Amino acid sequence: MADKKMVEEITSMNVDFAQWYTDVVKKAELIDYTSVKGCMVIKPAGYALWELIQRQLDERFKNAGVENVYLPMFIPESLLEKEKDHVEGFAPEVAWVTHGGLQPLQERLCVRPTSETLFCDFYKNDVHSYRDLPRVYNQWCSVVRWEKETRPFLRSREFLWQEGHTAHATEEEAQERTIQMLNLYADFCEEVLAIPVIRGQKTDKEKFAGAVATYTIEALMHDGKALQSGTSHNFGDGFAKAFGIQFADKDNTLKYVHQTSWGMSTRIIGAIIMVHGDNEGLVLPPRVAPVQICIVPIQQKKEGVLEKASELRDRLHRHFRVKVDDSDKSPGWKFAEAEMRGYPLRVEIGPKDIEAGKCVICRRDTREKLEVPLEELEVKAGELLEIMQREMLERARVHRDENTWTAVNMDEFVNIFNEKSGFVKAMWCGDEECEIQIKERLSVTSRCMPFAQEHIGENCVCCGRPAKKMVYWGRAY
Amino acid sequence: MADKKMVEEITSMNVDFAQWYTDVVKKAELIDYTSVKGCMVIKPAGYALWELIQRQLDERFKNAGVENVYLPMFIPESLLEKEKDHVEGFAPEVAWVTHGGLQPLQERLCVRPTSETLFCDFYKNDVHSYRDLPRVYNQWCSVVRWEKETRPFLRSREFLWQEGHTAHATEEEAQERTIQMLNLYADFCEEVLAIPVIRGQKTDKEKFAGAVATYTIEALMHDGKALQSGTSHNFGDGFAKAFGIQFADKDNTLKYVHQTSWGMSTRIIGAIIMVHGDNEGLVLPPRVAPVQICIVPIQQKKEGVLEKASELRDRLHRHFRVKVDDSDKSPGWKFAEAEMRGYPLRVEIGPKDIEAGKCVICRRDTREKLEVPLEELEVKAGELLEIMQREMLERARVHRDENTWTAVNMDEFVNIFNEKSGFVKAMWCGDEECEIQIKERLSVTSRCMPFAQEHIGENCVCCGRPAKKMVYWGRAY
Repeated sequence: MADKKMVEEITSMNVDFAQWYTDVVKKAELIDYTSVKGCMVIKPAGYALWELIQRQLDERFKNAGVENVYLPMFIPESLLEKEKDHVEGFAPEVAWVTHGGLQPLQERLCVRPTSETLFCDFYKNDVHSYRDLPRVYNQWCSVVRWEKETRPFLRSREFLWQEGHTAHATEEEAQERTIQMLNLYADFCEEVLAIPVIRGQKTDKEKFAGAVATYTIEALMHDGKALQSGTSHNFGDGFAKAFGIQFADKDNTLKYVHQTSWGMSTRIIGAIIMVHGDNEGLVLPPRVAPVQICIVPIQQKKEGVLEKASELRDRLHRHFRVKVDDSDKSPGWKFAEAEMRGYPLRVEIGPKDIEAGKCVICRRDTREKLEVPLEELEVKAGELLEIMQREMLERARVHRDENTWTAVNMDEFVNIFNEKSGFVKAMWCGDEECEIQIKERLSVTSRCMPFAQEHIGENCVCCGRPAKKMVYWGRAY
Repeated sequence: MADKKMVEEITSMNVDFAQWYTDVVKKAELIDYTSVKGCMVIKPAGYALWELIQRQLDERFKNAGVENVYLPMFIPESLLEKEKDHVEGFAPEVAWVTHGGLQPLQERLCVRPTSETLFCDFYKNDVHSYRDLPRVYNQWCSVVRWEKETRPFLRSREFLWQEGHTAHATEEEAQERTIQMLNLYADFCEEVLAIPVIRGQKTDKEKFAGAVATYTIEALMHDGKALQSGTSHNFGDGFAKAFGIQFADKDNTLKYVHQTSWGMSTRIIGAIIMVHGDNEGLVLPPRVAPVQICIVPIQQKKEGVLEKASELRDRLHRHFRVKVDDSDKSPGWKFAEAEMRGYPLRVEIGPKDIEAGKCVICRRDTREKLEVPLEELEVKAGELLEIMQREMLERARVHRDENTWTAVNMDEFVNIFNEKSGFVKAMWCGDEECEIQIKERLSVTSRCMPFAQEHIGENCVCCGRPAKKMVYWGRAY
């Protein structure tokens, strides 16, 4: 009874995907709500996941020549206002500090919603000569945006992220870095998180406040909605001119730097949940699973069982992240809990297994069970984790492709979004007016103009005028 | 000329220690000032140091059963006010958020100066039964205290730290954890940072707002001033009662949890600088040096020199954090820069060395030079780094011991603080009044009642009444 109860308490994803998501987030103990409206507690299981994301992303950053720094969390109002588009985009949603201790401040400070203005203020004094360039800095921090409606990981008033901010001597180099970092994000998502993504450019309507061009990776969730999973912006020299960031070039003339920024946040944990999860709970890709193998002793009170479980843990521990569940719950309960938490592999070991010199391994994603001789445990577990990592990506890719449609006119476009969900590939004239119409009518936005353009037709899906770009459209988180 | 200039720009530590400190922090490029008053930028060299501190401290935490989490950065005013002593201690120095977006908030929020109240609010809903205990959580984050006077690393309005917050079923277990974490900090300081510390308890006057007992590690800086380098607090059940954190114990009765908290911050970087630094700049202990070995090619335009330098880097890179300085500066300039930045070892390699199959290694701390056959480079470098790590701790210990005095009466006590600097060991009656008198007269505070008590005399150094404890006294940062 108790074993089933745990599972039954989760809403089926087919019945109510949003409720399923909230249930999983809570039952897998990733997050908790707090008395601080719109802010969350990231619990040990959630934070361990973030640490593994951080560590692997940071390693890729360092290999790409990125250096970490830390800038203040406060932005004086006058600094935020220096770049016109930027302040318009962010001022409506920032938190304002007006008092320090018992005194009112002379100038109010906002809690950073993003740090372009702070990096510009820093680079202005830090960059003098072409020898100081490029600057390829990043920080891991939390940012605040005063959202009205919040959802765990996807949208909260405070969230954790990294934000890279670079300064370059030339336009070309800035553009190269913008694309390099977008590709780094895409590779990370696919290779580590097993999430396939579409790489492309945002339309002007959807680009970042103050950017010349914004590039994005877009992933498709299990319910057919899109999630923007990482962005990379090229600012040209707009911020440099607003802040006066100049350097003496080799030819001894003063020039403005060209800048980029790029970020990925705890939002990506929402993508992991919504791409891989199922009705039993979380399914974690092995490369970011804080526990890769959970050993469940069967009839653990019988002599030798817990000892054997510990011995296996010590062996596996040399290669994998592993734990033994030796709590006093029933095996069935432990199985359900291990599935809810998304541990990639479960190893079952009981008296009969010990006698036979074997154990049972169960894969979380397919729930396939396999008998394995104990002496082959490490090798087999390693193989299964590799296979699972690969197949999770493949399965997500198939799901995405099966839910990607094409439309050549508005009837087709509307029908798809009324009857199905997913990405729709359709041509676009380049006019913001068409994006607005589509959004008002269907709550659908342009996700990106993919790098991999396809020729689907001659005319804009909305207005019928000659098309300029093929666009991925979708409903988004 | 240029080579000397770099060094000459640093004030000698014997002339003006405070200015020397500021010079080193700037010239070693650890930190920069910002337009945000009282807040700093931690630059790549400073942040890389913090990352190595973080990584090694976090590893020790995990081995001690600590789990990382993340709680909100905002505390609603009503929450901050729940524990009387705590709010009195912190309310005067917090930053207040009063507006979210364009709207005034119904209740103002402070930016966390420390997170006891948030953890209590969380544990109140998270802990139900003895099975949920202990909770041993930690977070890495930034906190804000609205200081009037600020100094890089030592005191700034925002700083980075970790704060551990635990909940236990019994008083004994809480006390055990409090001491365990203090010892963990002390071992970390000595083994990793090469900083010897005094372990002890704070007097009631100096303890943390809301704590039953505060324990501290105190280090002595090169100028004879003390720096509180890490603290661990036992809260008893005071916060639990204020917040209503109860659990059902094994005997089925409701009990209050016992809590602790403990923290170490970027302040410790100030200690590294002030314990080990010299007139050439920073001296970094090998275990936290972001660059452990800097290779300087001599006559690098000559054929084969840069190639050899790269080859050595690739070899050393397998075991150490290493870089080649192949910039177009002169070797002398590079030497001065490597010394300023505190790289533990410098390897010099030029055409003659290559011909002779050797190189020169120079230790940063002693500035000793050693000729080493190239084939022995890894082994010798490893040995030297080990020796340097050990000798740095030993040297700091000798300096501390040579600057630790004893006083049995007020005349001796005053004389020492008028003529010398350092720790003074002296007996104390336990009365806060004596601490206040000493502070007013000499700007000296009780640093701690050390665990290793010594019997220096019968009477309080200040009032002459019977003494209760031997206390370390000092002027402090």
